[in-house]
Amino acid sequence: VRTIRLLIQYDGTEFVGWQRQESGTSIQSVIEDALARIEGGAVTVHGAGRTDAGVHAAGQVASARLTTPLDDETLARALNANLPTAVRVFELVTVADDFHARFSARSKTYEYRIWNGAAVPPFIRHFVWHVPQPLAVELMQRAADALVGEHDFAAFQGTGRTVHTTVRAVISARWTEHALWLPPPGGGSSSGRSTSGRLLVFEMRGEGFLRHMVRAVAGTLVEIGLGRRNADEMPRILASRDRSQAGRTAPPCGLCLMKVEY
Amino acid sequence: VRTIRLLIQYDGTEFVGWQRQESGTSIQSVIEDALARIEGGAVTVHGAGRTDAGVHAAGQVASARLTTPLDDETLARALNANLPTAVRVFELVTVADDFHARFSARSKTYEYRIWNGAAVPPFIRHFVWHVPQPLAVELMQRAADALVGEHDFAAFQGTGRTVHTTVRAVISARWTEHALWLPPPGGGSSSGRSTSGRLLVFEMRGEGFLRHMVRAVAGTLVEIGLGRRNADEMPRILASRDRSQAGRTAPPCGLCLMKVEY
Repeated sequence: VRTIRLLIQYDGTEFVGWQRQESGTSIQSVIEDALARIEGGAVTVHGAGRTDAGVHAAGQVASARLTTPLDDETLARALNANLPTAVRVFELVTVADDFHARFSARSKTYEYRIWNGAAVPPFIRHFVWHVPQPLAVELMQRAADALVGEHDFAAFQGTGRTVHTTVRAVISARWTEHALWLPPPGGGSSSGRSTSGRLLVFEMRGEGFLRHMVRAVAGTLVEIGLGRRNADEMPRILASRDRSQAGRTAPPCGLCLMKVEY
Repeated sequence: VRTIRLLIQYDGTEFVGWQRQESGTSIQSVIEDALARIEGGAVTVHGAGRTDAGVHAAGQVASARLTTPLDDETLARALNANLPTAVRVFELVTVADDFHARFSARSKTYEYRIWNGAAVPPFIRHFVWHVPQPLAVELMQRAADALVGEHDFAAFQGTGRTVHTTVRAVISARWTEHALWLPPPGGGSSSGRSTSGRLLVFEMRGEGFLRHMVRAVAGTLVEIGLGRRNADEMPRILASRDRSQAGRTAPPCGLCLMKVEY
């Protein structure tokens, strides 16, 4: 028996999320099923982040215990051959037996993407939230600054999961503007700047996250960027510990798990 | 009656191509149908490039004649509201009545994208050709250099369309390596360099193109990059005027119409 660590990307559009569900196809189930075909028996895969339905991952990490004699590289190739193209394994290595993708994780980085323009470029439509109105990004950054550090994030917690504590440590939270790999008309081919719109990316790194936390934060920051809320009210929202005081949960398609650190 | 010019992007994955067909959904038909609903009567739309099934466009140009009193901006918004999200209009302007998207075009730029690595990042899987084996890009560039200028491209012409002449003027043909907007693991988040693979882009600009020409050229250049053909045989292939002398037609998903100049 050996323990393997997997580095995985997925387009979460067509999945019910990471975790295996009663009905619908989950990322975990397609990976477990593919490994089971290779292993010749049931395999349990643990993911670092239990991403929701429609959420993507550019750097999800998972672990599993296997008995197959295949070497790591052959196993990675066999696994990809048994997975849908929406899910790809980019790295597969044998690690120490005490490694557990979820419990060993020390920090995670998520990105939330917004297309801020009249029309969304078709090539990124499944990976962004469309906000057509002008956004005051400097105000959104000022509000995000108040989240850094250890806080009780109960006001930004979705329902449906029980946790011991709603205190979480946020390491960084920042807005940047990214270039598009297929720019819209009006943009320089590499600058990404365009008269048609801009791709705003909110990167949030933390030791841990509550359910829906990044999406609730992104939704609240957008309300601030639209001028519907004051940029200074973040400390008050945090102190309230009341979900109804924060903004709406941003849609899942804009969210992507970028990196897990150990 | 006024003439409008449209600047359009589309994800061609689910379409039978630009041109209206007996069966299946074409880009032309969804735009004509959307305009007809606004116009209250049949509308014919002319596209600059008649892209094939599965081919994409980041900068397709189209023209149409309309009587609707809606101003350009309102019309663009109404049109997008009536189109699937895979097709977006980024610019709509009223132009001189003698403008015709296809006949007025002076040059076009296409890009052909290859993912050169073991596994394709899920976020770009519909927009690249997957070539996992190592590619000698400098040889592919040397071979591409022989295409620049006015040549008879009969050896790179697909069947199914009748043309007066197979002579075409190629303005430039070059390979570059692009950054990914969602990089695969192992790559820096902005450099796009990665141990997992690289995105190779072949940009071809010309006064006109034969049917399947860019894809037949890309397929031939990849055979050179794989070492299955000599980098010096491009002049001989051109001179043969024989389709069987060139390489296989690269798959449509890697091709994208980037720009049309007038």
